[in-house]
Amino acid sequence: MNARLIKKLKQVEKEKNIENYFQFVLFGGTGDLAHNKLLPAFYNMLKKDILPDNFTIIATGRRYDSQEEYLAAIKNSLSSKLKLDKRIWQLLAANIEYFELNFKDEADFLALKEVLKEKSAGEKIHNRLFYLATAPGFFTEIAEKLKKFDLLNLAFEDRDSKLVIEKPFGSDLKSAQKLNKNLNNIFSEENIFRIDHYLGKEMIQNIMVIRLSNPIFRALWKKEYIDNIQIYLNESEGVKNRGKYYDDTGVIKDMIQNHMLQILSLITMEEPDDLSAQEISRKKVEVFKELAEINLDNFDKHIVRGQYTSSQKEDKIIKAYREENNIPDDSMTSTFIALKLFLNNQRWQDVPIYIKSGKRLAKKEAAIAVEFNDDFHQSYLKDKGSESNLLLIKIQPEEGISLQFNTRKPGSINKILPVQMEFCHSCEQLFNSPESYEVLIHDMILGDKTLFTSWEEVYYSWKFIDKFMQKCEEENIKLHQYPALSQGPKAADDLLADDGRQWWDKKLK
Amino acid sequence: MNARLIKKLKQVEKEKNIENYFQFVLFGGTGDLAHNKLLPAFYNMLKKDILPDNFTIIATGRRYDSQEEYLAAIKNSLSSKLKLDKRIWQLLAANIEYFELNFKDEADFLALKEVLKEKSAGEKIHNRLFYLATAPGFFTEIAEKLKKFDLLNLAFEDRDSKLVIEKPFGSDLKSAQKLNKNLNNIFSEENIFRIDHYLGKEMIQNIMVIRLSNPIFRALWKKEYIDNIQIYLNESEGVKNRGKYYDDTGVIKDMIQNHMLQILSLITMEEPDDLSAQEISRKKVEVFKELAEINLDNFDKHIVRGQYTSSQKEDKIIKAYREENNIPDDSMTSTFIALKLFLNNQRWQDVPIYIKSGKRLAKKEAAIAVEFNDDFHQSYLKDKGSESNLLLIKIQPEEGISLQFNTRKPGSINKILPVQMEFCHSCEQLFNSPESYEVLIHDMILGDKTLFTSWEEVYYSWKFIDKFMQKCEEENIKLHQYPALSQGPKAADDLLADDGRQWWDKKLK
Repeated sequence: MNARLIKKLKQVEKEKNIENYFQFVLFGGTGDLAHNKLLPAFYNMLKKDILPDNFTIIATGRRYDSQEEYLAAIKNSLSSKLKLDKRIWQLLAANIEYFELNFKDEADFLALKEVLKEKSAGEKIHNRLFYLATAPGFFTEIAEKLKKFDLLNLAFEDRDSKLVIEKPFGSDLKSAQKLNKNLNNIFSEENIFRIDHYLGKEMIQNIMVIRLSNPIFRALWKKEYIDNIQIYLNESEGVKNRGKYYDDTGVIKDMIQNHMLQILSLITMEEPDDLSAQEISRKKVEVFKELAEINLDNFDKHIVRGQYTSSQKEDKIIKAYREENNIPDDSMTSTFIALKLFLNNQRWQDVPIYIKSGKRLAKKEAAIAVEFNDDFHQSYLKDKGSESNLLLIKIQPEEGISLQFNTRKPGSINKILPVQMEFCHSCEQLFNSPESYEVLIHDMILGDKTLFTSWEEVYYSWKFIDKFMQKCEEENIKLHQYPALSQGPKAADDLLADDGRQWWDKKLK
Repeated sequence: MNARLIKKLKQVEKEKNIENYFQFVLFGGTGDLAHNKLLPAFYNMLKKDILPDNFTIIATGRRYDSQEEYLAAIKNSLSSKLKLDKRIWQLLAANIEYFELNFKDEADFLALKEVLKEKSAGEKIHNRLFYLATAPGFFTEIAEKLKKFDLLNLAFEDRDSKLVIEKPFGSDLKSAQKLNKNLNNIFSEENIFRIDHYLGKEMIQNIMVIRLSNPIFRALWKKEYIDNIQIYLNESEGVKNRGKYYDDTGVIKDMIQNHMLQILSLITMEEPDDLSAQEISRKKVEVFKELAEINLDNFDKHIVRGQYTSSQKEDKIIKAYREENNIPDDSMTSTFIALKLFLNNQRWQDVPIYIKSGKRLAKKEAAIAVEFNDDFHQSYLKDKGSESNLLLIKIQPEEGISLQFNTRKPGSINKILPVQMEFCHSCEQLFNSPESYEVLIHDMILGDKTLFTSWEEVYYSWKFIDKFMQKCEEENIKLHQYPALSQGPKAADDLLADDGRQWWDKKLK
């Protein structure tokens, strides 16, 4: 893999006439994301030798006083996650520059500019990324200061710096539009990389290949053969130290607007005419538009909101959501949601798409279940123990694909047993998937935007979510309680039971 | 499983008003089949408690002089195959009666009659099977003597004895017709059970369930979605001590006329309207008829005959076919055959069905490979390493099902890898398949003919084979040589290569 990626990297660089010089300027360099995801990703990419020959990570932050202190902290984080190869670490550390910076302090930006200049002395910087791993409230401010103090075009040959931002991109359509307008004053859409780290996950990237390179699935990928689609993204963790953010946001904005709608669009979109990022984005946007146009009658039959209460697991008391840090005693924020959606197009007319996500659920598990229509089951072999055919795309923790099919129960007289054919991606040496952030950083360097969210996608997903949130308020949708580490509110099961269906995450246990 | 089968057995018996009394009269009771298959099957069925409460096995033969000697030999055979449970063995032995009999000797039949009468003293025998595990040349003679000496209706209440015969049923259409006529003078078609032990294999019984109870396969089971079907039944053994029989027969009559055409018919037949033995047989017969009607142009492009030559494996010399016992030095008998066939109907028009069978091949392996059409592969994802979708039904030695599908190669830029989703029936405790002969004996007792070959099936399969053999002679089809324990003649690969295809047993290695 390494050899091929390096080749590809070199080829792309050659095509674009980019020399191997790359500056990664990280705001929020001392935060959780940097410690837990970004620097481990760099370490792994360095180990696999898929980074440009010359790179510098300029990590800005306020928590540490010195380069030594920062490196020690990073080393400590890495060591807790992986078996540190001394040689690789030394190479990485030699390319990290810690820079103490306060967003509010203009002098700091001027000083940062000097560092960037110094770090590129004698070299031309052809690839510079500003990665804002900060609270979203600072995005505009930082971007504006980068422009004001002329950090963007420094030492470039008619090339622009790229901006990378993490979700959330706004908290509703209006704020997203405002943020986008602000950023567009400074960076062109082409140079804004909006991360949805779910898109970096192996099985999410795999969806299109599974759909398009398997004639059997491609032929069946329509309402005539598919009864319903389920997407679930269950988390077992609570809100941890993100109480304030989470209570303002809730599960719909935290998970549905981005990750879940992205997955939904990849599973249901029309086939792209080619594999360009633009074309794929165009097809995804169609899905978001169709969602947004849907007018759900009996809205309250399409949504179940929930919030976790305390529970006891063995000897341990698990806190209720309202008891978590920085959560008001009377919070009405959803920590769980189950939805029934439809797409108003020829391919998916009347096929329900059930999506579900929540915190403090019994098991961490994300998957897509495509349940085939049982109409094509020969009638005299029905009611003998069979189940629907089911294609299960497992996203995490296990990565893989399974197909439920019906087989004869040996020694029986036409009794049938449903069983699973399995292929486990994460079990195979060959399929040692890189972490999301390795994939994403790699693509940022190459400038490949396929795994990043375009403004149009953001726009239409917010449009849908806004309408949805407004409906929730208008109809005063009930907030169901569910015990922490349970399977979620019973009402979520009833949502499917009313349609004669069942959630596959529960059924497959 | 036991409980259910017993229940079913009891239910069927009750419906048919049959008391639990069963006589199994075995001709050829001292032969290989009795030792290796039939008595082990009885032992296992007894262990599982799925035999009628009262049963007697009357084993006739000439090899042993006494009951004791016979039981000792059987015990010896069983012990070499399984861990003998003393209690089960004692129960079995108590129900075995060895009877020395010479087919030629009429007095022996009179004496056998007395034994049958004696063994049913005080009981009414409601279920009697005559199982002819003898050379086929004796079928008519034995049946006629059973009638002549009035062994058939003895102690019955308006019920007939059943006759069970092993293949081969004739050596061509004419001899099969003659044999059938002779037997029909004595037994009605309803009471003749023609064994094709392949039909007792778990995955063969499973074919219909896989086809009919899985909407995804059912929807795709036609020429529009299937590119070709391959059936291979490779044996690693030579002709062993069956030289004389085999040289008269050859692979076409030994394997194709029965096992392979049966498998072919189950895979390709139209869906039966119900699950009755008659209806399923009717649909199979349609396939045989359609085969028989086919007029293959360029006949020599549809067939590859082969015969094994000697080879060396490690230090051991493997004999050529012509060096085996009782094989003429200049034998032109085929020990290998590969065929390309077509069915002239709407479902399968122009879909080649490749079948292959041979002795002394590298690996014992039987499977059905259904290769899906690649037309539905999205074009821009072609030529990136993908393979056809393939449904593989593994018959032996492993029993299971796998589906080849294409998945993304992680870390690559749209490279594709074909991988297999697997379900292994023979690996699962739950799926501990009974041996073919257990299934078949069980069905004989119940009178269920689904897994037995009807006269019409025999008739039309011979009709096809006769025509085929005649063509072979007319066109003087070449006999290719292949080294013992090799993969067979290269010409068999060319047969598919000329169509741009490959045998999946080779490709999947």
